[in-house]
Parts: sequence; C-alpha cells; structure tokens
Amino acid sequence: MPFSRPSGRQPDQMRDVSILRNYTRHAEGSVLVSFGHTRVLCTASVDNKVPGFLRGKGEGWVTAEYGMLPRSTHTRSDREAARGKQGGRTLEIQRLIGRTLRACVDRGALGERTITLDCDVLQADGGTRTAAITGAYVALVDAVNWLKSRKEIKRDPIHGAVAAVSVGIYRGTPVLDLDYAEDSDCDTDMNLVMNDGGGFIELQGTAEGHAFRRDELDALLALGEKGMGELFAAQRAALAG
Amino acid sequence: MPFSRPSGRQPDQMRDVSILRNYTRHAEGSVLVSFGHTRVLCTASVDNKVPGFLRGKGEGWVTAEYGMLPRSTHTRSDREAARGKQGGRTLEIQRLIGRTLRACVDRGALGERTITLDCDVLQADGGTRTAAITGAYVALVDAVNWLKSRKEIKRDPIHGAVAAVSVGIYRGTPVLDLDYAEDSDCDTDMNLVMNDGGGFIELQGTAEGHAFRRDELDALLALGEKGMGELFAAQRAALAG
Amino acid sequence: MPFSRPSGRQPDQMRDVSILRNYTRHAEGSVLVSFGHTRVLCTASVDNKVPGFLRGKGEGWVTAEYGMLPRSTHTRSDREAARGKQGGRTLEIQRLIGRTLRACVDRGALGERTITLDCDVLQADGGTRTAAITGAYVALVDAVNWLKSRKEIKRDPIHGAVAAVSVGIYRGTPVLDLDYAEDSDCDTDMNLVMNDGGGFIELQGTAEGHAFRRDELDALLALGEKGMGELFAAQRAALAG
Amino acid sequence: MPFSRPSGRQPDQMRDVSILRNYTRHAEGSVLVSFGHTRVLCTASVDNKVPGFLRGKGEGWVTAEYGMLPRSTHTRSDREAARGKQGGRTLEIQRLIGRTLRACVDRGALGERTITLDCDVLQADGGTRTAAITGAYVALVDAVNWLKSRKEIKRDPIHGAVAAVSVGIYRGTPVLDLDYAEDSDCDTDMNLVMNDGGGFIELQGTAEGHAFRRDELDALLALGEKGMGELFAAQRAALAG
Amino acid sequence: MPFSRPSGRQPDQMRDVSILRNYTRHAEGSVLVSFGHTRVLCTASVDNKVPGFLRGKGEGWVTAEYGMLPRSTHTRSDREAARGKQGGRTLEIQRLIGRTLRACVDRGALGERTITLDCDVLQADGGTRTAAITGAYVALVDAVNWLKSRKEIKRDPIHGAVAAVSVGIYRGTPVLDLDYAEDSDCDTDMNLVMNDGGGFIELQGTAEGHAFRRDELDALLALGEKGMGELFAAQRAALAG
Amino acid sequence: MPFSRPSGRQPDQMRDVSILRNYTRHAEGSVLVSFGHTRVLCTASVDNKVPGFLRGKGEGWVTAEYGMLPRSTHTRSDREAARGKQGGRTLEIQRLIGRTLRACVDRGALGERTITLDCDVLQADGGTRTAAITGAYVALVDAVNWLKSRKEIKRDPIHGAVAAVSVGIYRGTPVLDLDYAEDSDCDTDMNLVMNDGGGFIELQGTAEGHAFRRDELDALLALGEKGMGELFAAQRAALAG
Repeated sequence: MPFSRPSGRQPDQMRDVSILRNYTRHAEGSVLVSFGHTRVLCTASVDNKVPGFLRGKGEGWVTAEYGMLPRSTHTRSDREAARGKQGGRTLEIQRLIGRTLRACVDRGALGERTITLDCDVLQADGGTRTAAITGAYVALVDAVNWLKSRKEIKRDPIHGAVAAVSVGIYRGTPVLDLDYAEDSDCDTDMNLVMNDGGGFIELQGTAEGHAFRRDELDALLALGEKGMGELFAAQRAALAG
Repeated sequence: MPFSRPSGRQPDQMRDVSILRNYTRHAEGSVLVSFGHTRVLCTASVDNKVPGFLRGKGEGWVTAEYGMLPRSTHTRSDREAARGKQGGRTLEIQRLIGRTLRACVDRGALGERTITLDCDVLQADGGTRTAAITGAYVALVDAVNWLKSRKEIKRDPIHGAVAAVSVGIYRGTPVLDLDYAEDSDCDTDMNLVMNDGGGFIELQGTAEGHAFRRDELDALLALGEKGMGELFAAQRAALAG
Repeated sequence: MPFSRPSGRQPDQMRDVSILRNYTRHAEGSVLVSFGHTRVLCTASVDNKVPGFLRGKGEGWVTAEYGMLPRSTHTRSDREAARGKQGGRTLEIQRLIGRTLRACVDRGALGERTITLDCDVLQADGGTRTAAITGAYVALVDAVNWLKSRKEIKRDPIHGAVAAVSVGIYRGTPVLDLDYAEDSDCDTDMNLVMNDGGGFIELQGTAEGHAFRRDELDALLALGEKGMGELFAAQRAALAG
Repeated sequence: MPFSRPSGRQPDQMRDVSILRNYTRHAEGSVLVSFGHTRVLCTASVDNKVPGFLRGKGEGWVTAEYGMLPRSTHTRSDREAARGKQGGRTLEIQRLIGRTLRACVDRGALGERTITLDCDVLQADGGTRTAAITGAYVALVDAVNWLKSRKEIKRDPIHGAVAAVSVGIYRGTPVLDLDYAEDSDCDTDMNLVMNDGGGFIELQGTAEGHAFRRDELDALLALGEKGMGELFAAQRAALAG
Repeated sequence: MPFSRPSGRQPDQMRDVSILRNYTRHAEGSVLVSFGHTRVLCTASVDNKVPGFLRGKGEGWVTAEYGMLPRSTHTRSDREAARGKQGGRTLEIQRLIGRTLRACVDRGALGERTITLDCDVLQADGGTRTAAITGAYVALVDAVNWLKSRKEIKRDPIHGAVAAVSVGIYRGTPVLDLDYAEDSDCDTDMNLVMNDGGGFIELQGTAEGHAFRRDELDALLALGEKGMGELFAAQRAALAG
Repeated sequence: MPFSRPSGRQPDQMRDVSILRNYTRHAEGSVLVSFGHTRVLCTASVDNKVPGFLRGKGEGWVTAEYGMLPRSTHTRSDREAARGKQGGRTLEIQRLIGRTLRACVDRGALGERTITLDCDVLQADGGTRTAAITGAYVALVDAVNWLKSRKEIKRDPIHGAVAAVSVGIYRGTPVLDLDYAEDSDCDTDMNLVMNDGGGFIELQGTAEGHAFRRDELDALLALGEKGMGELFAAQRAALAG
C-alpha cells in the first residue's frame, strides 16, 4: 500500500497558509494566521513599561502569552482561567514564543517599552505553536511600525524575520507541517524556528514512538528548510499587502 | 446644544447586529455574534455527563463560561488564566448567561447531558454580555438540533427564545444598546434579558451617577422592548439561513 | 385554599427589623442588623490609605467584603478561606454592597482614606444582602461621625440614606422581604436598593421559574417602596438612639 | 513600684467567663463564649460522613476550623477568604482545637459521622484559642446530646471535659489568662489544655523574650491548674442551665 | 515482658548524632545533621534586605523554611510545590524553627539583613524538627562567621546556643529522642527547645493517647535535659572541627 | 588569545560523573548523581495505582517531578511550595524527564503501577536536567529490579538505556557538558537525550545569542555522541557495582 497523508498532501507540502492583518481594531498589531484549519489570533500590545529587572537600563522587552479557547479543540478542554492555572504545555509554548521573537529584536532600539504578543487559538488542528510564532512576527512588525509612525522610536528594532514549522515522521515517512491527524499518530515530532538568514533559533524534536536516527533528522531538517521559505514569503506578502 | 450619541445613532437605534453560524468547526454550535464592533464567539459543547448534584435524576444541565481575550479591549487587560483566577465581573457574567439560557430549556427533555456555552469576547465595544446571551441562544439551538439529527433526544427541549440588550441614561437621555463610549460615561446602565413572549428573565439596573427615577425606568423598559424585537428577528433570520 | 406565607405574614409585611449599634468594640462603626432570623454583623473600618488607582487624587474610597460563617446556614457550607477562594455569589454580593454605599458618599469630602464595610452573616434566613446593605449604611455613618468627632474631615461626605429590600412572586402572589422558605421556592426574586429620595440605585430581578410580566414588575416595585419606608425609619431611629 | 496588670486583675485572677448556649439556631450546638472582651462563636455541625481515611471503619471524626472576622481585632486584618489562603497561625490553631477535642471523644461510640467545630472570633482581646477550646467543648456536648435525643447513638462518646487557658510571665510575674495588652508585651506565653481529671492534653510554652526557667514553669502550671477549675465549673453550669 | 525500644536503645539514650558542615558549596552556612536515620540539610542564606515591617529600623531578621523531599518518608508524600501549598504541619514547623533561632540572635547586632534557614529533610525517621533546629543553629553560626570574616558586622549577634530534642511516653515508659517507630505509636510526644543556659525556649507536649500526669511531665523534662547536654556538645565539637 | 573553558576542560571533555546507588533508604530506587558540582538526588517510588486515564488498561505509568532546593543555587531562589506554584521551567523539565524515561519502558510489562521519579537538585552548577535524566534511569532500573525480586513482574519492562547531556557554543567553540559559568554566557545551548542504540529521544536547541548554522549543529551532535558513550558506561558501571 503506497504511503498517503490523511489530508492527501505530498510529504513536502504545507497546508494553505493565510495571514490576515488588522483582524481586530484595538491592538497595535492584530493578525489572524491560518495553517489549514488551525487558526490563531495574534495581537501585539505596546506598553510604556518594562519588567522590574530591566527598569532604568534603556532596553525594551518582548513577551508572549498563549491560550486555547476551550472549544477550539475536537473535544472541549477545561478553561485555564477557571481551573486557576495555566498548564505546563501552555507555559512551555508561551515561553518559546517570547524567546523566539526576542531573537529578532534589538531591545536597545525598542527603548523602555514592552510588546506583549497574545496568541489565542480560535481553532486547533495541529501546529498551533508554529502558526502562532509565524503570525506573531507579523503582529510585532505592525506594532513596531505603529511606534515608528508616531516617531516614538528612531532605529528599527527588528532585524530579520522569524517563522516556525513542524516536521515529523508519520508512518515511516518524513513529512512537513503536521496536522492533528498526523500529530496524534506520529513517531517523531519536531518544531523548527528559524530566521530568514537560514539560522536556527530553536530546534525541538521528540520521539513519541521509536527513537529517530541521524539520517531521519537530516531529512526532517531539509523538509523544514523548504517550509520556511514558503512561510517567509507569506509573511512578506502580508506585510506588503 | 442638541443631544447626540457618540456614534451618531438615534436614541432608540441599535447597532448593526450580525449572527454568523458555524464560525468554527469542532463545536456542536458555533456562532460569531456582533453588536457593532463588539464581537463574541459563542460555542456550544455537548457532553454526556451532568454535574454531581444532578446525577441519576434524568435531567440535563446548561452552563456557561465567559472570557475576554486580553487585547479585545482598548488597553490590554491581564489574562485571567495567568493571574490564576477569574475576576468577580467574569463570574457574575457567566452565572448570568447560564441562568438565562436555562430559562428556555426543558431539562427533562434534554436528558442527562450538559451543554456548555463558551462566550469569548474577540473584540469589545460595550454590551459584551448582551451580545453573548443573544448569540449563545443560537449556538444552543444548533447544538440541540445536532442532538435531534442524531436522534439522541426525542422532544425539543427549547421553549421560546431569549435575547438581551442594554439600555441606559446617557447625558440625561434614555438610549438603547450602549457602546463603550456611552457605557463608560452614563448615569444609569440596565441589562434586560427577555423571552420572545415578552416576559422578563433578568433585569439588572445600576445607577452609576445619580439614582434613577421611576419614570426613567419606564422609558428604559420601553426602549428595551423595541430592541428585543429586532434581536429576536435577527436570531430567527440566522436560524433560517 | 387561600394564600399564606410560611411565616404567616401579610404579603406586604416585612419581618421585624432591628439595628443594634456598637455591637463590637474595635471598629469605627459596628452594627448588628436583623431582618427576622437573618443576622448580619456589619463593621466599618477606617484606613488612611486609598487603592493605587486613587492615590494623589484627593478622593476617598468605600468598599465592602461579605462572608457567611460556615454554619450560619441550614446545613454547613464550606469555609471560603479553607477552599482558597471566594465564590461567585460572594464576589457578586460584595461588589453590590460597595457600589451601593459609594452611591451615597461624596468621595472628595471623605479625603484620601478608605472605609471598608465587612458584612459577615452570623445567621442566614434569606435576604442577607439586603440586610447587609441596610446595616452597613448605619455602620458607615458611625465611622464618618467618628472621623468628624476627631475633626479629620470638614464637610459631611454622606448625602442621603440607602437601604435595600427583596421582593418576589411566591406561589403567584407578590410578597415583600422573602425569608429562606420563600426564597428557595419562588418564581421571581428581586432586590431593590434605593435612596431616601425615592431614586433607584440598583434593581436586580431574576425569574427563577416562569418569566415575569410587566404588571408583576409594577406590583413588586410598589411593595418595595413600602418596605423602603420602614427601613429608612429604622435606620433613623437607630442613629438617633 | 508595685506590680499591676493592665486590667487591674490579681495575678491569679481570670477574666469574667460566660458561656451562652443556643446562640444561633441552625447548628446542632452553638455557643458564644467570652473570656472578658474576647468573644468566640463556636458551632458544632453533624454530618453523616467521615473523611476518606476512616470510611468503613465504624469510627467517627471530630475536626475544627478557626477564623477571625476581619475587624474582630484592634486594626483590621485581611480576610483570609479574599487572600486565598488560611495563614499559618490559623492552621496551627484549628489543628490544635481539633486534636484537643478528639482527646475526649470515643470515636467508636460516635459512629461513622463527623462533627465539625467552627470557632469564629467576633471580638479579639487575647486568648482566642483557649476560649475557642473551652466553648467548643460545650457545643460538642450539645451536638452529641442532639444525636442522643434522636437515638442515633447508643453510648455516650464523650468522656470527661476539656478546657484551655493561657498563662504567662508579664513583667516578671506569672499571671493567669492574659489579655491582649499582656499578650503583646510578655516574656513567656503558655497555653494549657487539660481534662477534668487533671491530665495534660496539650502544653505549649513559648519564650518571647528571655528563656524561662524550670521554677517559672512550675509557677505557671500551678496558675493554670487554678484557672482550669473555674473553667470546668463554668462549663458545668452552662450545660446544667 | 520487659520494656524494650524498637531500636534496642536505653530509655535515656539518644540516637547517634552527626553534624557535617560545608555540605553544599553555595550557601553561607550548610550543614547536614543526622539524628540516627533522620537526615536534614540546613542551609543559611544571607540577604542584605529585611521584610517590610523592619525596614529602616536598623534590625535584622532570621527566618526559616522547612520541607520534606517527597520520598524522604516511608511511603511517598505529595510534593507541596505541586499541590500548590504548604500544609499546616509544614507551616507550624517552619514558624517554630524561625522563632527558636531568633531567640539566640541580637537582631540589632545583625544589622539590616535577613538570614534564611532552609531545612530540607532528605531522609525521615522521626524527630525531623528537632534535628532541623539543632543543625540550623550551626548553619546560622557559620553564616554569621562568614559575615564577621568579611567585616560586615562588628558585634557577634549570637548569644548562647539552641538545640532541640523530643521526649515521649512509649508503652508507658518515658523515653528520649523518639524515632519513627516510637513516634507513630506513643501516648505522649513532647518537643523541647532549650538554650545552653538551661532555659526553655519552646515546650510543646501533646497527649496522643491518654492525658499525661504531672509526674510524667517531670520525668520527660529530666530526660530532655540529659539529651540537651549531648546536643550542645555535638554542636560545639562540629563548630570546633 | 587561545580558547579556554572556565573550568580548564577540553572542549570535548565531560565533568567527572559519579552515580551513587542506595543514597537514601526508603525509596525503591535512590541515586545521587553528580556531573561535577551539580548534584541531584533521584528517587524512584513504586505505587500500585495508575492515573485515571489508564485505569483498567493493564498498562503502567512512569512520571517525574523536579525541584531545586532553595539554596542549591548561587543565590537563594524562592521555594516553589511557598510561592504556591511550580514555575514554567520546573514544569518543562519534569515533563521532559517523564517523557524521556517512558521511552525506554514497556508499559504493558510494567503492569498497572506507577513509578514516580523525584529529581531534587541538592547543588546546582549547570546541567541539572541532563544529570537528572541520567541518574533517574538508574533509579528506575533499581525500582524495576525490586519489583522483579519480589516476583511482581514477569517480563523486564526496561528496553535499552537513556541518558542526557548538554552541548553548546561557548565563545564561538562547540563544547560538551556546560557548567553554570558556560551556560550563563553561551550563544547556543542544546540538550540531547539519546538511547544506547544511538537513537535520539529528545533534541532541544536554543540560540541564546546569534542563531546557529547547520554546520554548528553537526559539530554539537558529534560532541553529544561522545558524551553519551561515557554516560552509558558510567550507568553500566554503577548498576554492576
């Protein structure tokens, strides 16, 4: 039986990606990003304060929070606000998003202000963290442009672009951009965060089933590189729109 | 100087109301309701369990949870999941939504299952609780229709419709459906929840500034009744769509 | 069978109301208020600080906290301190009490100080929130008088009086001041907070059973007005005592 | 200058003690105990369940919870329910009360039911824990008598009586039953819990200032014994009343 | 049948005591104390700040925190960090340790700095709190010596030594230094904290079974005094080492 | 200036590794693992229950909890139990440890029981999570051997070994097994978890400074492979001891 993906995609084929700017009206940056059926609302909020450990140092801060609406998922999940705490997976993802976006920001040029990226999943179908990073970058650029248009900052604090994609080994075959059906049934799942200069910012691979070999790792990295090219193009198109 | 509302509306004029069904794909009912710029995503989730106090009684339960995305508001609010608890306003609103929707449900006909309405504000501009109730009713009907289509229930548990609207006294004049600019600067704010038989389910009026008189109350109730008619029409149109 | 109330009262008859001042010795105002078997201890505490959002504005603050002793009720309720959070009902009631009492205070005349009203239910038999508001007003006046006697404030910050009473539809008949037996078995329950000029400060009506009609609302408001007169008289008598 | 206590009492003189039964109407036992200005409401609630670790063993349980109303004290304390947890002092005291009362109960004779003693301080002036134990014992006896009157238990589970008193060294002199003025300014503070057979159940002494010597300990124990006699007499009188 | 202890010790015989200094490398004082199989790691950390209530008063503070590793016990206990709060027993013990060590410190001589004693139980076999106090004293002295060697303090803030031991009545016989087998099966358990001048700092006795008589108390105090002598010798030997 | 590591090690040189078994006496497996000055106590506790989602499926569970003693670090950190929650870093690490050890366990062969690995850091100097995984594996094997010696399991549920090591780019040079001085000042930090068949279980790389290139990744993986060989040898030697 020949290999096929649940969605009928080719192994190296991403889902349709869309990046809509100005999705809501109050935030300085507001982006609805879709990777197939996965839809994440990413807003960037500017605040003229920094956390205590940075006060008086002339540097800014970029941070992120992540959440899933209770029924963004196939079956309803508990609301974290009602349970009274954010789960380990949520904390892990929001730390990743913040760390990743700080990697493309010159915090001195940003000045003593904080930009908070809120990434809220409206609909989940695998890859919410990679969609969130890819969309949050665009919201961040919009917020920085808003600051520039008001002449609040002089130098552009953004250097390069960042995006993220997942790769994995599904039924023995390396594939790009796993959806939920693949994600919940794969042997290895890896999230790649890269910049548009080809450098790695984060690399997180997990063997869910059997451990993966070095040659499999190489194949996954090659797939990831292909997906990255498409994501950077989609970001540029959205920002040019 | 003649009276004028910030939005230029007539005192008895509602904002544009829209009710989109099937907004997300996983929930049994999923509605995006807009009252002007206020946009609330209402999902209805069916679960074949009931809370402990109802177990074994042959009755169902309808409950609600409410949340605001951190940057749905003019300035960013703290994420309740990160603060570790839902605030008093949130608890008050979600208790109201649940109580209100239970008022149009025959819980015996629903059988031993729970329908949870999640009302999440994507964009806030006043009246989020009234939009939430109005939209959640439609999501609830969709979830019940889903149960009926699967023959899981025999009798229709929904009797009548419920909707909600705010009225208030803005700069001395009674007005219908306050937006944020009015809501944050009014003397009296009242939320009305009614059924389509003209009965009151909830009536909550608060004097923010000077106390309101009986004749003002009468004027507010008349405005509310007008708005209700339009909301029930919008719900019927959406469900017929 | 003719209508009768569990307590044998007439439909428009309040329970015996008593308001004892100086019930405990440390607080600047300390009142034990009883509506029949419902007994609430209301203390007013003066603090020479204001919450952060008011600092430096020359205005004071009035706030309230509410609690029930675990065995104030027919069966023991969990202690909120032990459960680690205040429930939604508690938060809703204490927000109501605070909002209501602020409605009769000139916060500029109070100066930069906070008065906290603690309303703790020693024995519950329905109507704890209306008794709390009615008693807290007297405790507030005592605390203000304490400030005046020490010459800490120049102008009287209290304008008018506030009191509260419940009305409802019990077995088809509108009645005044519901006790627990009625409250747990009524169709509609409404709490009225008014000032002694006849103005409404809060109006909260809930249909527990069938929705209530406009003529029923009118009847409830008339009953409420009657009760209010008696409560303002009881407050005046207590303060004159 | 001769020694004198702030209250003018003799070193071996207790404050006036009063024990009022049936103070509130819902609890199976309800006692207002006063040691001078210290007033504690002690209720005993019967529940036909036991904690998990006792289920199916045919034994009962006695436990206690303790709280202070926010303005029972000279200056207002935070409400523990609002802070979201009980402090270390509260937990320590309620564990002491529960342990102490279990010492006079035959848990087999009680059968599989729990009696919860809620000790809530209405007014504090030192010695709240000793007053709580002394009053809770009487509430416990009333709850047990309620069970006996309903023939729910056959044998009396209460053996002997328990009471508690504080002793301490105030300005060099051993004194009995410290009030707040003494408690906050003494060198050594000791709480004694004893039964009416002269046995010690708990003994907790703390040197706040200089360490106490063995002869001082002996003097304190003698004072305590005197106080105990008066407390057992007060309990017997209350129960006979 | 003659009396025997589970460990074969004489009634007045302590377990082997060892006090190892410099057990870990980062803390200003770090001691591993063993009472038989009970092993507690006590570290002393110096911080140049004091709690808010002491700020600007020229005085220092000494405080303690206590914890048990989840599998320090015979069966695994829940991790308090995971449960989200410290239990009542933990709070009680750490309050005791802090109070006790403050009793031998001249807080004026310490200056505006805080020394925190962390007492973490690596292996538990009864008597963890008495071992913790005895070891924490040595860690405290080491931290003070570190301050003196850096000339940060002029006068020695330590006056005298403190140590702690348990005594109890096991199967009718008063015994010294209870291990777990005795502790979980004794009638009376008493913790003594004393200084090396023979004064009592804390005395906490609890009758787990029948109440204890005055002559039993006297026997327990005599045993305690003997144990104290050995503990002070062990502390002196360790500090001389 | 030639490259040198703060510790004087060669770039491909690990710190001294030691693995002590039976470090504490109650746990079924108890290991003190040291990577240089980093010391982690890993205990394995067997419980004859499984979490709810596995009940009745005939499979076991392996999970982990992680903590740092407050003064295991250079400056004291807050105690998580006192703060009332585990931080994001802690949750992330304990999820990693659990996932990793499950990768070498046949959960069917384990049967319906849970093994909990508690990894508590006594002294931290970089690499606590890699030391924890390496040591926890040995504790797990000891717990499984304990089960086998009692004939509670028939087949060996352990397949292969797992260990972990960090690699990173310090001042431009790829190095093996970073200590704290390197970790807090490096450009890229990567944690590798592998099995003794050469397969990857987890791969987590983060660019703290500039993004890392593909050739740097290859160099890091080669270093990691070398370290893994030494760790598997150390585990085998300890288990043979």
